[in-house]
Amino acid sequence: MTTLQPLTTIPSKAEIIATHQAIAPLIHRTPVLTCEALNKMTGAKLHFKCENFQKIGAFKMRGAASAALRLSQEELGRGLATHSSGNHAQAVARAAQVLGVPAYIVMPENAPAVKVAATRGYGAEIIFCESTPEAREETLEAVVAEKGAYFIHPFNDHNVIAGQATAAKELLEDAGAQFDVLMSPVGGGGLMSGTALTGRYFSEKRLTIFGAEPKMVDDAFRSFHSGQLETNTTTDTIADGLRTYLGPKTLEIIRQEVDDILTVTEEAIVTAMRHTWERMKIIIEPSCAVPLAAVLSYPDHFHDKTVGIILTGGNVDVEKLPF
Amino acid sequence: MTTLQPLTTIPSKAEIIATHQAIAPLIHRTPVLTCEALNKMTGAKLHFKCENFQKIGAFKMRGAASAALRLSQEELGRGLATHSSGNHAQAVARAAQVLGVPAYIVMPENAPAVKVAATRGYGAEIIFCESTPEAREETLEAVVAEKGAYFIHPFNDHNVIAGQATAAKELLEDAGAQFDVLMSPVGGGGLMSGTALTGRYFSEKRLTIFGAEPKMVDDAFRSFHSGQLETNTTTDTIADGLRTYLGPKTLEIIRQEVDDILTVTEEAIVTAMRHTWERMKIIIEPSCAVPLAAVLSYPDHFHDKTVGIILTGGNVDVEKLPF
Repeated sequence: MTTLQPLTTIPSKAEIIATHQAIAPLIHRTPVLTCEALNKMTGAKLHFKCENFQKIGAFKMRGAASAALRLSQEELGRGLATHSSGNHAQAVARAAQVLGVPAYIVMPENAPAVKVAATRGYGAEIIFCESTPEAREETLEAVVAEKGAYFIHPFNDHNVIAGQATAAKELLEDAGAQFDVLMSPVGGGGLMSGTALTGRYFSEKRLTIFGAEPKMVDDAFRSFHSGQLETNTTTDTIADGLRTYLGPKTLEIIRQEVDDILTVTEEAIVTAMRHTWERMKIIIEPSCAVPLAAVLSYPDHFHDKTVGIILTGGNVDVEKLPF
Repeated sequence: MTTLQPLTTIPSKAEIIATHQAIAPLIHRTPVLTCEALNKMTGAKLHFKCENFQKIGAFKMRGAASAALRLSQEELGRGLATHSSGNHAQAVARAAQVLGVPAYIVMPENAPAVKVAATRGYGAEIIFCESTPEAREETLEAVVAEKGAYFIHPFNDHNVIAGQATAAKELLEDAGAQFDVLMSPVGGGGLMSGTALTGRYFSEKRLTIFGAEPKMVDDAFRSFHSGQLETNTTTDTIADGLRTYLGPKTLEIIRQEVDDILTVTEEAIVTAMRHTWERMKIIIEPSCAVPLAAVLSYPDHFHDKTVGIILTGGNVDVEKLPF
């Protein structure tokens, strides 16, 4: 497996290319799908990058692999660590499993049993903590101190961003179309940052790059306009992958490269999720539906445009659907 | 568009090749997907032909196109007709729409509103009748007599069977693997017949060809062994696409070419459907899950085998899921 140098600045075009080559054995090259019915409904030409079919069911595998492959053999041998109850937990666990090293995942004690089981299924050791940000940080610090394991941040890390950038790179390469608009949802901003860098580096024409975010947790929208890290007063959105806020590294890239953040209602998210299930016959998480919700909510931005959208993941509890 | 000659006998290899070329503009070449988690679970190497991504959401588009393209311009001009409240209705409606001719679809008055709307969405005229087999036949006969429209049977027709055969042909061509076993579900037997013919004509090695059927409506299993057309005393299966019985033409081909029919419980169907949704992140109808249910129910037949499975469709009401 190719080894990579750790990144201390915003990833360059060459660094994203090298990252893509290095992580290839750890990821699927997921398909790009189109849907006549959704094109008719939106008046746009939509191309969906299906990271719901990615290893562990989400794009997070790319960033975890990219960060892990930058460690020395000695660092790697001590294992990987993170705190997450979502897809990043599974991604770090799976990367560690493939590389043959231990994974230590800090999870809140109220994490869904299905997520705990999935992460454990990749051979990770789960360390439970109270469900507060402070407890999470402290528990992780203790694990890192005790085991010497390397902490992979879920998004505020240039090594992770370089990995997430490869999803849009494949989308540009495989779609067989020149895009006018490129979009991803925004949570912590790792995928958004990577998507924006790729859009600037690898597209011949100057793309419009949009982020899409639930109105209920619109910290990225506010941060984008204020230039400061804003927070949310609620996590009350169905798009559970987008409840977190930007970090300084993702805010910097997003302010530089993204054209605008479009915010959408909860109702628009559920409608877009349902259309994707019913028309495309694929299972996506609510977070994935946020860009399509933006296309439906801001039709003037998309009419007659060729649009690339990253579908981020498919890990959803089929017993708890919003319809 | 290529025109084809009407078939009066079991389709030959050359006729299936010609059919495939002719219907190509009317269908998607759907992807073949694999899933590491399901391979691990079953101990087999499974390749799934995703006809849930087909036009109108099901393989039925192939058979309808194959039958319609065999009509003269004069016959075609009078329109297409059928009775169905399922995927065949939408397939005939869509074929007529693409070919620019009328479609007349007889549906029981209690047909689900969503199916009526979908069929009407392809421009078809819906003619309602009482929900009995007799009323259906009579109403269809009256429509055919009045309009001169051509009746496309959902399965007991060599022209339709030649179209359904093209799904397995693409599966053999695209999987990049030599199969040991080829499988489809059995309802009226159109897809099963086409799949079996393709398995015999286009595979270099002699494949094992299995049909998979719900125990609750096991007429094909009994017909296969008795050599006579058997019927069911109930339609009480979740696999709503498989409630019908074989016809004389499909029974003849199935008796000649299929190695066995494997029957499965309702519980096994729901389990297999859920595994497919959760692991593959794709939406399939209950009928599609019947072959995977057979793989899980008869593990000795599949251990270490490379298996091709046709996923028939993805038209499911997401508000009425069995889990």
